[in-house]
Amino acid sequence: MKVVFFGDVVGETGRETLREAIPKIRSLYQPDFIVVNGENAAGGNGITPKITYEFLRLGVDVITLGDHAWDQKEIVSFIQDEPRLLRPINYPPGTPGEGHIIVKGNAKKLAVVCAIGRTFMLPQTENPFLTAKKIIAELKKETPCILVDFHAEATSEKIAFGRFLDGEVSAVVGTHTHVQTADETIFPKGTAYITDVGFCGAHDSVIGREIAPIIYRYTTLLPTKFILATENPRADGIFIDIDEESGKAKKIERIQLSLPSS
Amino acid sequence: MKVVFFGDVVGETGRETLREAIPKIRSLYQPDFIVVNGENAAGGNGITPKITYEFLRLGVDVITLGDHAWDQKEIVSFIQDEPRLLRPINYPPGTPGEGHIIVKGNAKKLAVVCAIGRTFMLPQTENPFLTAKKIIAELKKETPCILVDFHAEATSEKIAFGRFLDGEVSAVVGTHTHVQTADETIFPKGTAYITDVGFCGAHDSVIGREIAPIIYRYTTLLPTKFILATENPRADGIFIDIDEESGKAKKIERIQLSLPSS
Amino acid sequence: MKVVFFGDVVGETGRETLREAIPKIRSLYQPDFIVVNGENAAGGNGITPKITYEFLRLGVDVITLGDHAWDQKEIVSFIQDEPRLLRPINYPPGTPGEGHIIVKGNAKKLAVVCAIGRTFMLPQTENPFLTAKKIIAELKKETPCILVDFHAEATSEKIAFGRFLDGEVSAVVGTHTHVQTADETIFPKGTAYITDVGFCGAHDSVIGREIAPIIYRYTTLLPTKFILATENPRADGIFIDIDEESGKAKKIERIQLSLPSS
Amino acid sequence: MKVVFFGDVVGETGRETLREAIPKIRSLYQPDFIVVNGENAAGGNGITPKITYEFLRLGVDVITLGDHAWDQKEIVSFIQDEPRLLRPINYPPGTPGEGHIIVKGNAKKLAVVCAIGRTFMLPQTENPFLTAKKIIAELKKETPCILVDFHAEATSEKIAFGRFLDGEVSAVVGTHTHVQTADETIFPKGTAYITDVGFCGAHDSVIGREIAPIIYRYTTLLPTKFILATENPRADGIFIDIDEESGKAKKIERIQLSLPSS
Ligand SMILES: [Fe+2]
Ligand SMILES: [Fe+2]
Ligand SMILES: [Fe+2]
Ligand SMILES: [Fe+2]
Ligand SMILES: [Fe+2]
Ligand SMILES: [Fe+2]
Ligand SMILES: [Fe+2]
Ligand SMILES: [Fe+2]
Repeated sequence: MKVVFFGDVVGETGRETLREAIPKIRSLYQPDFIVVNGENAAGGNGITPKITYEFLRLGVDVITLGDHAWDQKEIVSFIQDEPRLLRPINYPPGTPGEGHIIVKGNAKKLAVVCAIGRTFMLPQTENPFLTAKKIIAELKKETPCILVDFHAEATSEKIAFGRFLDGEVSAVVGTHTHVQTADETIFPKGTAYITDVGFCGAHDSVIGREIAPIIYRYTTLLPTKFILATENPRADGIFIDIDEESGKAKKIERIQLSLPSS
Repeated sequence: MKVVFFGDVVGETGRETLREAIPKIRSLYQPDFIVVNGENAAGGNGITPKITYEFLRLGVDVITLGDHAWDQKEIVSFIQDEPRLLRPINYPPGTPGEGHIIVKGNAKKLAVVCAIGRTFMLPQTENPFLTAKKIIAELKKETPCILVDFHAEATSEKIAFGRFLDGEVSAVVGTHTHVQTADETIFPKGTAYITDVGFCGAHDSVIGREIAPIIYRYTTLLPTKFILATENPRADGIFIDIDEESGKAKKIERIQLSLPSS
Repeated sequence: MKVVFFGDVVGETGRETLREAIPKIRSLYQPDFIVVNGENAAGGNGITPKITYEFLRLGVDVITLGDHAWDQKEIVSFIQDEPRLLRPINYPPGTPGEGHIIVKGNAKKLAVVCAIGRTFMLPQTENPFLTAKKIIAELKKETPCILVDFHAEATSEKIAFGRFLDGEVSAVVGTHTHVQTADETIFPKGTAYITDVGFCGAHDSVIGREIAPIIYRYTTLLPTKFILATENPRADGIFIDIDEESGKAKKIERIQLSLPSS
Repeated sequence: MKVVFFGDVVGETGRETLREAIPKIRSLYQPDFIVVNGENAAGGNGITPKITYEFLRLGVDVITLGDHAWDQKEIVSFIQDEPRLLRPINYPPGTPGEGHIIVKGNAKKLAVVCAIGRTFMLPQTENPFLTAKKIIAELKKETPCILVDFHAEATSEKIAFGRFLDGEVSAVVGTHTHVQTADETIFPKGTAYITDVGFCGAHDSVIGREIAPIIYRYTTLLPTKFILATENPRADGIFIDIDEESGKAKKIERIQLSLPSS
């Protein structure tokens, strides 16, 4: 089973990048499933129902979120009607929506899980390790092919989480820092891993935003508007090939797809 | 001018890795200067005078530090006698030692600067942007070839810092997260940049330490001893080629040198 | 029902302070129960079995802990045998020991709960609000008289927690900052509340430790040993009078009992 | 010299509270100077020029700010024209406005300093200890009577800062947590100290804001609007009597002035 996962889509440039990237990725990788982290799709802050549908129409199978999940308030009710949009599993019990789903296609079944880290992160959530363990045990009854988006800041927490799930899931892919790491690997028990996939959007930027205002803030602490960048659109992602019988990863390959500037 | 910089050397395995890596790197890259971040060289915690001399004997020209600078208390006085050992420039005024140096060799001059970030970091230091700006202005009177180790956690702060110094220095290389990023680039005004170089040490680990105790801590919060890992030694570094006239970077190349396990 | 609660006992001076304070407090307040936060009793770091027994022999009924719960490693197994020593309820499921107990005496029953906050706090624990709600619902079947020690840093989290439990418990008393607040009150539905009770120990200090090394650290960031202070011993606590039928608080009174210096 | 300092004025209720409190305080304490922390005066977020003038018209001599200094953007330019409005001294060099002033009245001179802490605080500022030391040395040439508002979160940093300035200034009064502490004292070398003065505004609240939305956030992490509370207006402050010759504090007294509900 071939899966492509795209890192955080940032704003309009990110969405355009994704739109252009998907057909190219289809012909390059023939993915059975496409998963996208959409937590910054709406102007950098969360996602809207409209953008959700736009992504689904592009052929995205599942959209994961992160600390920006509720930035657009209407998502709180919308997520209850759209199971392909996932908020982190380790939000408090009773949180609207779900953090996992099993999607089917081409006679294949992929479980997708969205979890969020706690080190250097807000909001303060429940233990991601313990929550993931419980949910993954359930999902494994349905399919051995499981992809986990671990949306977190600290490398130690992310690697520990990946190692914790080694042999339990097909892949743990990190998001949130918006910088792709060069540590993609397959762990000893068969779980593909990367600390961070990167992001989809304008890369002449500070993680998707215009450079000058960010430098202004760091040097003055004065108020300034952080606007989204537009130059050097690139789609960062990861390709994973999974053995369908065992759920073990056979291959992991980093994607950095530069696109003609808008 | 060719420069190789190695990321945080972690413990005995890291030191052994460095020892084996340097001759190989010499024949591969013919570096004029070798710079190493040594903040975790002594059992993961800081550096000792003995290890400092060991590194210098290996041909290391400058050693940078980070948040672990003072883990070994004797370093506080030792650093005043050994100018090739750098603590962050943005420690408070009056701090022992220096955070910058100009080294010479092969009729070439390289300035090296060690700075530390503030986002999600302890200890709480002075503004790295403003401090770096002042010091770099001085160093530029001596040489246009300047390498900055920015030891920091958050990708946004690191990229902003790199962009802030674009055109002012030859290279900004990130350390501290112990995970190499895949975003090495040369910025428009000629500064080579990478968010994190990675680390030298055992890579079957959580950033250099044994996996099991770290997972135990994340899942139980109970006390446990974090011991250093030993398997899969690898030296993570970066190669930078600098135009000596202009100080602009001509090339940046990531290094991941796997070595036979001890 | 009369209850006296003492804030964090810090080191030897704190223990001596408690020893001298208890008889005085007995004659002043005739408490039915005495509860003490003991998280800093062993040299500032955690508590030992020996100190636990010492406190129980002094007539302490229940000892609560906080973020320093496991500083002394032997406590992890000891706590399973000593139900009067409480670690926070919102530690991960499976944590040794308990975070609540019902104690009896003088034909009275008091439930004591130990919870820990998350804002600006380590370690990262489960949601204290949701965990407390569940446990308190159980305890209320046994007794309406419930005292909660909320060990937390941020005033907003502490007040929100107190308001959240207003009418559900007899008292919410804050600990951890080691500074007594002047906001003791009884909330509209009958819960006595104070943001922080303060600490027992040497008050010519920075929250129990010698002043000079702390200032040295803040001004230099250099390594230094934080030693416990000894001057100006004072026991900070809170007296609460509870209506046994309803569990509602009738009175809350701050205690600052200065003792002759050792 | 008699000085009254009021803690953070929160929103409209806070301003009304201050308006009613000032005449009462005048007749109770006959202050020579009134200083107010105004960082939350404009709907909880910063201060406006209009509110600044309103406070000055009420007889306030100096207004201090804190982490909310720039919430209202127009303040960045306004502060350069109004020296009685102080932003923290340890904002980066080049920041608009000043963090200290000497005010005169009744043939008396009071220096007021506004500083901000770093532990658990944003934004990340320069070292408050070192910055304060330098500025206070200058101010002492003009007057020994110096009042410092230390706007900070952690009790250890606040007490260390107060002790650091003991004998150097007349008073260090803490703000930011919005909860008055019960540790007002005069340190051995004559500096009056309190960890936190509290706030002016609606006290049936979570530090000035409506209770229900805050609890909702802590229990669900879902988006909600934090609205300002209106019930139980109270002005929290501190009275300090200073010996004009020596600058040493003779008296410190906590103020909690409850006012008829609006
Ligand atoms: Fe993101
Ligand atoms: Fe994120
Ligand atoms: Fe390191
Ligand atoms: Fe580090
Ligand atoms: Fe404590
Ligand atoms: Fe504590
Ligand atoms: Fe405030
Ligand atoms: Fe504040």
